[in-house]
Order: sequence, then C-alpha cells, then structure tokens
Amino acid sequence: MSKRQGKQTVIFSNPVGIISGASVVGPKEGEGPLGEYFDQIVQDPMFGADSWEKAESEFVKTAAELAVKKAGVTFSDFDYILAGDLLNQSVGSIFGLRETDVPYLGIFGACSAMGEGLGLAAMLIDGDFARNILCMASSHFCSAEKQFRFPLEFGAQRAPTAGWTVTGAAAIVLTGSSAKVCVTAATTGKLTDMGVTDANNLGAAMAGAAAETIIAHLADTGRRADYYDLILTGDLGHIGSELLIALASKQGLDIAAVHEDCGVKIFNQITQDTHAGGSGCACSGVTFAGYYLEKMKRGELNKMLFVPTGALMSPTTVQQGESIPGIAHAVAIEATQRMEMD
Amino acid sequence: MSKRQGKQTVIFSNPVGIISGASVVGPKEGEGPLGEYFDQIVQDPMFGADSWEKAESEFVKTAAELAVKKAGVTFSDFDYILAGDLLNQSVGSIFGLRETDVPYLGIFGACSAMGEGLGLAAMLIDGDFARNILCMASSHFCSAEKQFRFPLEFGAQRAPTAGWTVTGAAAIVLTGSSAKVCVTAATTGKLTDMGVTDANNLGAAMAGAAAETIIAHLADTGRRADYYDLILTGDLGHIGSELLIALASKQGLDIAAVHEDCGVKIFNQITQDTHAGGSGCACSGVTFAGYYLEKMKRGELNKMLFVPTGALMSPTTVQQGESIPGIAHAVAIEATQRMEMD
Repeated sequence: MSKRQGKQTVIFSNPVGIISGASVVGPKEGEGPLGEYFDQIVQDPMFGADSWEKAESEFVKTAAELAVKKAGVTFSDFDYILAGDLLNQSVGSIFGLRETDVPYLGIFGACSAMGEGLGLAAMLIDGDFARNILCMASSHFCSAEKQFRFPLEFGAQRAPTAGWTVTGAAAIVLTGSSAKVCVTAATTGKLTDMGVTDANNLGAAMAGAAAETIIAHLADTGRRADYYDLILTGDLGHIGSELLIALASKQGLDIAAVHEDCGVKIFNQITQDTHAGGSGCACSGVTFAGYYLEKMKRGELNKMLFVPTGALMSPTTVQQGESIPGIAHAVAIEATQRMEMD
Repeated sequence: MSKRQGKQTVIFSNPVGIISGASVVGPKEGEGPLGEYFDQIVQDPMFGADSWEKAESEFVKTAAELAVKKAGVTFSDFDYILAGDLLNQSVGSIFGLRETDVPYLGIFGACSAMGEGLGLAAMLIDGDFARNILCMASSHFCSAEKQFRFPLEFGAQRAPTAGWTVTGAAAIVLTGSSAKVCVTAATTGKLTDMGVTDANNLGAAMAGAAAETIIAHLADTGRRADYYDLILTGDLGHIGSELLIALASKQGLDIAAVHEDCGVKIFNQITQDTHAGGSGCACSGVTFAGYYLEKMKRGELNKMLFVPTGALMSPTTVQQGESIPGIAHAVAIEATQRMEMD
C-alpha cells in the first residue's frame, strides 16, 4: 500500500525516532537569545583551521561526533549519512565527514538541507533500507560571505534586507525504533519562483515556497494549521516571515498564531545588528537541534511542522539576471507520549 | 524485514522498472563513437542561450521533457525529481527544472549523480513512497572549464591526465511496476580519499572509490564479478580504469573481462584529442541512457552493475592543498526476461 498521501506528502507507518541532536555554533550565535541551548559554542570562528572552509568542516565533524556520542552509538552503526551545505560542491560536509567510513548521500537544497535530509532519511528508515541515519547541515558566516557576497576584509555595508549566515553545524540521529520524538510525515517542496532577483532579500525569495509547502502539507493530510503547536520555518527571517503570513492569508490560511522562524529566533535583531535575521543551512539545523528538539523531549511542545527553506541561486545566476527560486521541505515531528494521550 | 544486505547494499523486493531514458548531447559527443545512439545532438553548444550555465539548463530541460514524453506520461505523473550537476549550488539542474511543478530533491555526488539518483529513487519506489520518479544528471564542457579550470578564451594547454567534461544531460524515468529493465539492488559508496591532490587527474582520485564500492557490492550480495555481463564505471577514463583494474586485482578481484568505462567509450581518445577520456555528470548519464539501456532493452546485455563515480573537490579546496576524495554509487540493473530464464 502506498504511503503517499496527496500530491507531495508521505506518511510513515513505522516509527522513525529522533534519538539525538547536536548543535555546534560560533561566538555570535552563542551570544544570541538561544546561546544557552546549544551543545557547544566555539569562540574561535576559525576553529583552529587555516581557512574559513576548513573551519566549516571542523564544525561539521564536531557536530557529527557529538550527535553520535549522545545517541550512544558509533559511526559503524550508521547505514547512511545525508548531508548538505552552501559551499561550492558541498565541500563543507564532504571534508568534515570524509573519515566517517559510512555510506554517504550528498543532498542539495541550499538552506532547506535539514528538511530534505530528515524527510529522505525517514523514508529510507520507514522503507526498511536503513536502521540508523545521520542527517547533517552546516554553514559559516565567513565562508558564505566570501563565496556569495564580498570578502570580509572589503567591509561592504550590508543591505537592511540581508540575512546573517549562521556559523555552525547541526547533526540529527534518526533510528528505526520508537523514541520520545518521532518523524511522522514529510512533504517535499517544489521549485517555486516568485520572480525575486535581489540576492540581498532571500527571505522574500523563499516565502512563496514556504507557503506552497505548508499549504500542500495541510491539504494532503487534511489537517488544520492548529493541529500543530508550532509551524517552524527555516530562515525566512523578519521580512520573509511577514510575507509568508501574508501569502498564506491570501489563500485563506491563518498561521500567525502558530508560526515561528529559526532566523528570527536565533539572533537579537536590534542588539546583534543582524538585519533580516539568521540564514544558512545551519540556521534551522542548530535552532531545531539545540532548542526545539529539547523542548519536545521535555514535553513543552508536542506537534510541530518543521519547514526548512532554501534560496536556490549562485552568484553567477544572479549576475546573469536570473530570478531566485525557493524551496521548502516540511517534516512533521511529534512527541509520542502526547500521541498516545490523544 | 530489512531490505539491507551487508553493510552498504539494499536489495529491492518490488519491481523498480526503467521505462525510459533520454540523452541530449553537444556536437563533440555527437561526433564520437556513440554519436548515433544519442536521442538528440544539439549542434550549438550555447543551445540558443546567452551563457554556458543557461545552456546547461537547456540541456537539462530538453532531456527531461524527452524522457517524460518517451515514457508516455506527463510531469504531473511524477512524485519526485532527483537531480544533480557540477555547477555551484547545482544551478544547472535547478534552472532547467524550475517549471516542472514536481517535488524536487537535489542531490550532490559530483559525477556520481546518476548513480546516487537511481539508487535513492529505487528505494523511494520500492518503499512505496513514490510511483514515478525522474532522475537527472548534467554537465557542460564550457561551464565546467570556466568554473573549475580556466576561461576557454585563455586557451590553456590541457594536462594529458585531464578528462574532457561531457556536454549534455541524461534523464531516466523509474516506475513502480515491472519493465523489461529493472533496478534490482543499490550499493551506496563511502567518501574514499586516496590522497590524490592533482585536480587534473580525477580518474586517479576516483579509482579507489570505484574499487571500494564494487568490492563491497560483491561481498554484500555474495556475487562473483562474472555474475554481471558488464561492470560499467562512470568517468574514470583511461588512467582511472587502469588503476581500478589494478586496485581490484590487489584485493584478489579480477574485473578486467567485464569492465567498461563510460569515459573511455564516449570519445575517441586519438581522433578527438580528449586525453584521459570523458568526464562530468552527463558522461555516465548519457552513455547509460543512450547506449547501454538500449542494449539491455534489445537483449544484448542482461545484467549490469552501473557504477557512476565522482571526484569531490572545489577549486577552493584544491587551492588550499586538500586532497580529493572520491565516491562511487553502484546500481544493479537487470533485464527481466533473462532473469525469468535463469
């Protein structure tokens, strides 16, 4: 029997448990409102390496090792690693994980990486292709600025609509047995192009994709928005979040009461001068792994729809005048105790 | 019951049929030994676009549309597209497919893209998460040279060990019903670093990964190399293929009699001046879709292990002195008629 429900969603019939998560971040993230929740704050953004790219890989390596340790297993217990980042040819993930000796599936969905990874991993586990999977997402402010915008040394003024790439890496361990927190459904997003061409306003480029995926998820499952305690988008930031609320409202869906955004939560916009908010693959990754996953484990949250968002562009496509499609992948995550009570 | 067999392999219990494949290539590929087998040869490498990157996306779009048409379906019949390429942030695939309105899962494994895609897609179908999936891989000589080596206008002399990136795109349609040709198993590769640091000798960087994955596949399944009529690697080229044979031989495995390589087959090394041979995500993609898939359909080949290979690096990692890990994903592809006769 097909596990598909509607056009974009799959429902998991076997338990897919989240048994551990790890969040390793840089100093600015550590000084932000969620600082106390992250597993490790690395005060040196170079992480002892001699380049920003190698530093990003150190964050990846450290988060992977920590999640595996917290799960009480070893790398040899894993069937797959699914990992993605923003660096050209995904080298942040690859060089951070090259010593793991685990079958490796690289993914690319820009900052939606953790959503794509969790959804795919849950399918592989529910389909009996794997027992344990490690999902990874990472980004680094300095490697991202260098690659996508200007060299830091240039000291360019930042646009008020620009996001602030989160420095860090997140690792989530999924397993094929019931746990306190489980992945129960996944809705895979489509390439959604709203015609935005401003690479300094990626929240606007992604808002349409987030709306499309959330609306598809609710339609496919027949659920109302308030089925969830929380609909958590990835890195829309302040501007993208407002646009999402407005776009959903235009289609008759009011999500304002249950919506939060990792990019809004991770920094203090005023005191940290982060403009539109946090962004990057690590933004939704570390915010979920460090803050929300723990809230679910403690029973303070029971049902959430986690919707990491990605802006699909390269400096080359922007320079060539292309618009910036967005994508958003939704994963339903539920605390099992509450499910039994319902 | 787990579908896992051994450490890296999954066996499919439900049919995963390959119902169509499409190969769209540039003029040089059209002039090569396999020219007559490709679906479409585009004489203008710009494909009517105004940049190499946009041209690559045109190849992607054209191959996708052709494969869907050949399968006798429409894009609305697809549950997922899995696609990967070499361009920064995978924009070759994204901009070629942004109008498809199909749930999109970006993958990254450099030139192993078609292997990663077919393996993952077969799992999603066998696991009842999807009925129809479109797998895509693309590359373009000019966009790759510009991004990884030198601007074409610079006229740099090519190293004798360098490969020649294939211009083109391949599309494969997989479906959850029996077909003449089916995917029967998938072995996912590991990040395998042999310490090669020469970005002009990627065949050498990938040979170790190919050997590792082939040996793992045979160990996991308990098969001998001659179970297969053909073990087809992706883009090792002349140098990498020799190294693969030698590395396998060192571990007591003789694959010389059944091994071929897409990078060796697609160009005439002497008359086309292609040095080490074809490379790029499209190399294994179009060679499989255009040539070998049709041979299987005609009954000239019955069992093959398709092993696309990828070299995992960026210009930045090479400039920073990093070695180049390789990866290889194997997919067992079998003609069902012969299976019934066995």
